[in-house]
Amino acid sequence: MNIVVTGGAGFIGSHLTIRLVRAGHHVRVIDNFSTGQERFLDAVRGAPNLEVVRCDILDLPSLTNAMDGAEFVYHLAANADVRFGLQHPRKDLDHNTIGTFHVLEAMRQVGARHIVFSSTGSIYGEPSIHPTPEDAPFPIQTSLYGASKLAGEGLIEAYCEGFGFQSWIFRFVSILGEHYSHGHVFDFYRKLRANPHELEVLGDGHQKKSYLYVHDCLDAIELAVQKAQEKVNIFNLGTDEYCEVNDSVRWICEALGVRPVLRYTGGPRGWIGDSPFIYLDTRRIRALGWHPTLSIREAVLRTLRYLEANPWLLEARA
Amino acid sequence: MNIVVTGGAGFIGSHLTIRLVRAGHHVRVIDNFSTGQERFLDAVRGAPNLEVVRCDILDLPSLTNAMDGAEFVYHLAANADVRFGLQHPRKDLDHNTIGTFHVLEAMRQVGARHIVFSSTGSIYGEPSIHPTPEDAPFPIQTSLYGASKLAGEGLIEAYCEGFGFQSWIFRFVSILGEHYSHGHVFDFYRKLRANPHELEVLGDGHQKKSYLYVHDCLDAIELAVQKAQEKVNIFNLGTDEYCEVNDSVRWICEALGVRPVLRYTGGPRGWIGDSPFIYLDTRRIRALGWHPTLSIREAVLRTLRYLEANPWLLEARA
Repeated sequence: MNIVVTGGAGFIGSHLTIRLVRAGHHVRVIDNFSTGQERFLDAVRGAPNLEVVRCDILDLPSLTNAMDGAEFVYHLAANADVRFGLQHPRKDLDHNTIGTFHVLEAMRQVGARHIVFSSTGSIYGEPSIHPTPEDAPFPIQTSLYGASKLAGEGLIEAYCEGFGFQSWIFRFVSILGEHYSHGHVFDFYRKLRANPHELEVLGDGHQKKSYLYVHDCLDAIELAVQKAQEKVNIFNLGTDEYCEVNDSVRWICEALGVRPVLRYTGGPRGWIGDSPFIYLDTRRIRALGWHPTLSIREAVLRTLRYLEANPWLLEARA
Repeated sequence: MNIVVTGGAGFIGSHLTIRLVRAGHHVRVIDNFSTGQERFLDAVRGAPNLEVVRCDILDLPSLTNAMDGAEFVYHLAANADVRFGLQHPRKDLDHNTIGTFHVLEAMRQVGARHIVFSSTGSIYGEPSIHPTPEDAPFPIQTSLYGASKLAGEGLIEAYCEGFGFQSWIFRFVSILGEHYSHGHVFDFYRKLRANPHELEVLGDGHQKKSYLYVHDCLDAIELAVQKAQEKVNIFNLGTDEYCEVNDSVRWICEALGVRPVLRYTGGPRGWIGDSPFIYLDTRRIRALGWHPTLSIREAVLRTLRYLEANPWLLEARA
């Protein structure tokens, strides 16, 4: 099959690309390399069934050209930064909402009708129900990131109804693992590497968060695309557990053999729009036979080992 | 107070503007007059506390200028056409999502922090619960219009959390009454005027819809803005009844004294994305002491009388 992966050189997209290339599909990566890394695709470099196109999804004519021949699109290109939305309010709208609209329009032009979308548990805002199911009460948005992804979901759903598209929408918790280059493990590791005696922790450390290992995430996506055949298929993806930020700090410090003084910025949230409790109900995807293979702790430690083995990434993302 | 009304020359916006001017506020109408009509503001023409600025909300620099001094913004400017979204997929995104983002950014620039937003019951897609409450299960979008308004809601909510805005979001059923110039009563009246012997009805006529009289709608908005003081205040607005399209056809034909042959296009929906059953739970706004004064039938007939008395409008909207 001719598959396009937007953001195919990014954290999750690169692993997906490698899997799809190895499965024999013709894969075209579309990436602007703003956060994607060519080295993430080293494992399949030179494969005859891989094309890498440097293209920004905000450039609709180029995107439409790059989409030529696509039958199935994994749309992972995004501004994945939830924390700094308020510093540049247009960025999430551009990359996650308008970008998704462009992907849909390009697909419509070339006749592609199947789309996988990486959404987020952030669209639940600060949910009233934990674990939070896919049909939770209509949420109120608390971040520009969540709002922009929710808007992307809505556009995709409207294209399914209006233009005969089929979609698989995945609402992720934070993803961990190899190629990870953004988020709390990254931040803590970088800070502790610079100064192992002191660590600033955003909020009061009691924020409850859930995480998922990247290959568990991709197993779930693969299974859902095979088995779920509604017009719009929506799945939460996460582990059936959560941890406090303090737990993660402890695991990381123990693994690195450091005992820093912890300085908390205070408050129940790490930043404005930070949800103090993220924990998704994953019964829907589990009912298809999926279960995660790594616990949150194992995923944190595997991510840490990856970062230790790849100091180039800290510099690339400096 | 210095109040801006975007879409202030439109159907609902013009009535709101007239009320606010008469209440002594300084009102600045921002309208691109794509569907707004100068004549809708005849009742307050020349009032010293009314300014009318011809400006498109898609032009952010002009909008920011026009917003200067605003303390409170009623954001009603929109592409209000749910039916033709698929013919121009970018239009709803531009006017309702990006337009709303511009309003928020302009407000942020000038220091305005209070916004009323005209959303829609269409954001519930095809709801599983009737009457549909504000905290209904997370819906799936079925129209580009609904998706674009949902995105507008999300942006507003994120600005409330991130930038200290306060918002009142109203999810309307279809609004009827004076200055109405778009929708099924308008279409039926225009068709019957051209040919009273035959009437095409979209769908099978059994679509169940709810409607609200424009002054009942504005009473509810006025009350909610006074009494509801959460950061984000969301209210369904509608009557506690619904009718079938066939009912409305009967009322209109009886009032006009015509007996056309009805020709149904068939199917449970009038068009792709048409919700076959719209009926909103309005207990939240009723709890503040509001109730509608006109039934659906009365609102349909009043609308019809208005159209009969204002033939210029049929030509203006031809």
